[in-house]
This record gives sequence, structure tokens and C-alpha cells, in this order.
Amino acid sequence: MRTVEWDDAQSKLRLIDQRLLPGEFRIVSYDDYRQVAAAIQDMVVRGAPAIGVTAAFGLALAAIQSKALAASDLMRDLEESARVLRASRPTAANLDWALRKVLAAVSQVNGTAPELRVATLEMAQKLADEDVAINRRMAAHGAALIDDGDTVIHHCNTGALAAVDWGTALGVIRMAHEQGKRVHVLVDETRPRLQGARLTAWELQQAGIPYEIITDGAAGYFLHTGQAQKAFFGADRVAANGDVANKIGTYMLALAAFDNGAPAYAVVPTSTIDLSLEHGGLIPIEERSPEEVLDLQVKGQPVAPQGAAARNPAFDITPYRLITAIVTENGLVYPPFGLNLAKLKFGALEAGW
Amino acid sequence: MRTVEWDDAQSKLRLIDQRLLPGEFRIVSYDDYRQVAAAIQDMVVRGAPAIGVTAAFGLALAAIQSKALAASDLMRDLEESARVLRASRPTAANLDWALRKVLAAVSQVNGTAPELRVATLEMAQKLADEDVAINRRMAAHGAALIDDGDTVIHHCNTGALAAVDWGTALGVIRMAHEQGKRVHVLVDETRPRLQGARLTAWELQQAGIPYEIITDGAAGYFLHTGQAQKAFFGADRVAANGDVANKIGTYMLALAAFDNGAPAYAVVPTSTIDLSLEHGGLIPIEERSPEEVLDLQVKGQPVAPQGAAARNPAFDITPYRLITAIVTENGLVYPPFGLNLAKLKFGALEAGW
Repeated sequence: MRTVEWDDAQSKLRLIDQRLLPGEFRIVSYDDYRQVAAAIQDMVVRGAPAIGVTAAFGLALAAIQSKALAASDLMRDLEESARVLRASRPTAANLDWALRKVLAAVSQVNGTAPELRVATLEMAQKLADEDVAINRRMAAHGAALIDDGDTVIHHCNTGALAAVDWGTALGVIRMAHEQGKRVHVLVDETRPRLQGARLTAWELQQAGIPYEIITDGAAGYFLHTGQAQKAFFGADRVAANGDVANKIGTYMLALAAFDNGAPAYAVVPTSTIDLSLEHGGLIPIEERSPEEVLDLQVKGQPVAPQGAAARNPAFDITPYRLITAIVTENGLVYPPFGLNLAKLKFGALEAGW
Repeated sequence: MRTVEWDDAQSKLRLIDQRLLPGEFRIVSYDDYRQVAAAIQDMVVRGAPAIGVTAAFGLALAAIQSKALAASDLMRDLEESARVLRASRPTAANLDWALRKVLAAVSQVNGTAPELRVATLEMAQKLADEDVAINRRMAAHGAALIDDGDTVIHHCNTGALAAVDWGTALGVIRMAHEQGKRVHVLVDETRPRLQGARLTAWELQQAGIPYEIITDGAAGYFLHTGQAQKAFFGADRVAANGDVANKIGTYMLALAAFDNGAPAYAVVPTSTIDLSLEHGGLIPIEERSPEEVLDLQVKGQPVAPQGAAARNPAFDITPYRLITAIVTENGLVYPPFGLNLAKLKFGALEAGW
């Protein structure tokens, strides 16, 4: 199933409860948009595209719940519900974007309240389908970079769980696997939140793709000894010069790949490329709670001494010079990134410019 | 106190039980060499120099325990006890070396059994004092590399707990601190066994040196943003060309330092330099149990999915081109390492060659 899925028969939204993975696979159904807002806030669902589409379906539920008879009353109810949904994760740009998209589409329908209800659900469904289509195209472009027999290193979680389906870098690996290529994945555990050990390992297990979990510091060893040939990761933001902001540890992985002549690929939807930022140094780095570093246990015992201090930057910047290519739904982008990302964004690449 | 200490009043060996750190600080006393062998096997004590000296004191206990009246009978008892002690950690080169040193010294004493007993303890005490003296000299040479106000990144545990006292890289930092330099330490947690978060953080806390724990993958971020200026680590073995074998993750740390023009220093006793190995590729890398990667818990829950596979190389090789200098008890060694390490080992450096 998809990470975020509309149940047509019951008019409910179904989510995989990601907080319970990998220990338990549980699907939760929602028929109240307020519950959906709470689910976003409580991290039942995570990953920018997944959150955006979840909020859009939340709006579809709000439309069904609304008792409005007139179209204008329904629009007011939808706008109020959008405020509730938006407040569930105020910093998620994608959530706001998805809510605006649905509201804009519905407000342009010149029809009755029942017609607007249908339009709300249709727009949410369209966003979900578009997300899957974009990820499939990314996966198809990227899969060409994987050769039969490759061992690749993957950082963080970039799979179906972070999107509606497929995901970014992990989607590329899954596509290569489905094309019949033998691909082995070394999964960076991705401290501190361990999305690799937790979610990527689980997704690979589900897909039947062979993998092994490694500590983040071991990636260099596998690249240096030739046991791994390529590195794949996603990105939260790509600057105009090709600098990549992604989960902490990506920079050191890209360095290790570069030092051994192994290609490093960032897999991103074009919506992630931000030409307004000249370089990665302009991307603010969120520093999260030290607890995420310190709350580890081994055999039930805490690891760090009581009163220990920690620093916890959540992202880092990988300079463009370490990136071999950027994989998007519209094709592969190679250096010089400054020129080629602009071409891509302005559509000139496809126009043959 | 020292990590390994002889209690003269009671004729007992005292060890810090490192398995309980950082949760509990407990000193254990031993008056039976068989208990000492068990303590080595059970990891009450760890770190090559600490284990070697512990075994030497184990032999001193064996001499006291022996009921032999004749010197030759005592020597036979000591050789038998050495076999028991050696078997406690068969792969530890330093343990065997220390036992041989003590046996050789005692066998050259032309005296009575009581005189040999005294000689055994004296030789063990001499090895302990020499270890401390070597580490102090390393610390003094290395401390000159730290400037007032520096923030340095430190990998694994290289402190007093790994030796009799002081340690290697952490000894350098402690010496700089005692010299009145303000030094801040970013402590790599050092997955998978977390010696950084567990032991280095505890030692720094004891010494009153300001520190923060970071995930191994975050070191690049701090070097790239200029928040850290230098990297320090120990080594298990240094090859003739300066390649350094050390705890997994050292290579990626050294790469990140190099990429940002920050110096990376390996701090080692000259006994660690092995001129018989032309380069680091000849050093075998131990791969340990996947359990060390997989047995993590957060909030009491296991992290990786059931049945997950893992790879766990314990060491990696840092190429000499990434090492700024090697700090030894006989001074700093700079490139070209091939020439200068040979000079150092042959004593020519001191002779002014």
C-alpha cells in the first residue's frame, strides 16, 4: 500500500503509523480532519511530500464533515480547517503548499457545495498521484546509474515512507532492483534519529532487496576497500550552484565517495531546487535537541554520563564539487550545476536549449 | 588514581571497573592472579597499555601466591601463571609483550626465591611507571599543537582509562588544559561501541574540561563551519609510510579535517609504529559481531528490524596524506613520514642525523 492512501469504500484516510516501525506495522484510519492534524503533529506520518498529501486529504475529510449547504459556507469551513491542519507542523513548507493548492483549485470550481466536496477530494487525490508519478520518473532516470552487481551506500530514509510511494534515492534503488539488476545496499544507520536502521532497513526488507546496516563512520572503509561503488541520498534543499542540504552526515559520505573516485548522487524532485539561494551557505541549519544524541541505550543502560552536553545539528551542506549528478524527475543534471540547474528549472533542458 | 594501580599496603592490584562507567565508578581489588586473568577476559580493564601492565601485576601476585622455596621452582610457577594470564586475551600483543618483559627481567636475577618475588613486583611497577612517563612525554609534545581557545574533535577513547594514566590523544588535550589553555572538545560518540560518549565524556567531565558529544557524522559540519579547528585521535598501528590504523570512523574524520584545511594529529607511542608494514593496506582489519551495530535501543525499544543484517569493521586505515603530524613520546613527526618515522625508530632523530 501507499504510505498515505484514500480508502474510497469507507471515505477514510489510511496512514502507516511510522512511530511503531520497524517493530509493528499498523495502519490507522481517519474520518476526522482534526485527527489528521494530530497525526501529523504526533509524527504518525513524516517526510515532506507525505505530510503535504496527508494534509490535502485532511481537507477532503473536512469537506465531507462540513454541514454547509451553500458553496460559500463550505469554502469558509475549508479555510478554517486548513488553518488547523497548517498549525500541526508550522515549519513544513510542503504542508502549506499542498493546502494552498487544494484551496485554490476548489475556489475556482463554479459549483454547488456537493460539487466542491467532490473537487476537494479529487484535488487531494491528484496531488497524491502526481507525487507518485514524479517519484517514479526520478526512479527511472536514476536507475540507469546503477549497474548489475553494484553495492551502494544509502544515507537516512528516502523511501516510500517519506513520500506517498517510491520516494527519492531509495526509489532509484528499488527501480533498479525491479529491473532485475542485482543491487546490494549498505544502509547508513544515520545517527542520531537512526532513520536508516529503523525505516530504510525495514523498507528494503519488505522489498526483498539485500542490505546490511553499517555505522555512519564505516562508509569510508567500504568505499576505500572497493566494497561499495556508489553513494545515494536525497536532499532537503539544493542551492543554485548545486550545493546540497541534507541529513547530517551526508557531507562526510560524499567526501569519502569523492576521495575514492566513487560517484555520489543526490536524488530530488525539481521542487527542492531553490534558485533563489546562490550557495548552500545561505541555507539555515536547524539544530535540534541534544536529547536525540543522548537518549541512546545499550542493554537498557544509558550510554552518556549524567549531565553530559551534546550538539545536534540536523543537516549539513555538501559542496557541489563532491556531487557527481543530481537526479530529478526531468532527468539527470551534471556539472556545471549553476547553468544546468537553471536550464532545468526554466524548462530549457527539455526544449533543447 | 591510575586505571591500574598497585596497593603497596595491602599487596593488592586495584582496577577501575570500566564496564560500569559512566553510570558507576567502582574500584575492584585483586589478590589472586587468576582473578586478574578473569578481569582482563571480562573487560573490567581495556586498552592495550592498561591490559599489558595489568597482566604484569598479575604476575607479581602469582609470585606472592607461589609457595615455592627454590628460585627455580618459583620461575616454573611464574611461567605457568603467565600462560593463564596470556590466555585471557590471546590477540593482545601488548599483554604478551609485558609478560615476556617481566619474565625476562626476573630470570636474569641471580638470587633467592624471595629476591625473585621482589624483582617481579619491581618490574611490573617499572612497566607501569614507564607507561605513564611515555604518555606524559607524548602529552607534552602534543600540547604544543593546541592553541588557547581551540575547539578540537576527538575520536574514540584514548584517555587514562586506556592506559595506566594520561593516555594518548586525550592526554594531549588534558595537558593543554592543565597548561591553562582554554580548549573545548567535541567528542565523537564513536559508534558502534560508543567509547566516546561513554568513556571520553566521563574522563573530560572528571578533568573539568568543557566538552560536547556529537554524532560521528556531524564532525564534518563543525569543521566545515569553522566551529572546530583540529582533530586528534590515537592509533592501533602506524605503517612505515605513515598510514594509520585506528577505530572505525577515523578515516572520515581525517578526510573532513583535510577538506577544510584543519590539521589532523595521530598520537601514538613509538611502540605502535610498525616499520615492517610498508603501508596500511597490509594491516588486517578485524570485523566484529553485527550485534554491536544492532543492539541499540531508544526508549527501551530496539531500533533495527528483526532479522536485520549488519557489517561491523572495527578499524579503518587513514592514508598518510591526510595526517598532518604524528605525535610520539620522542617528538612530533612530520611528512615525509617514510623517512622521518624510520629516523625516529632508529633513534637518529635524537642523534641529530
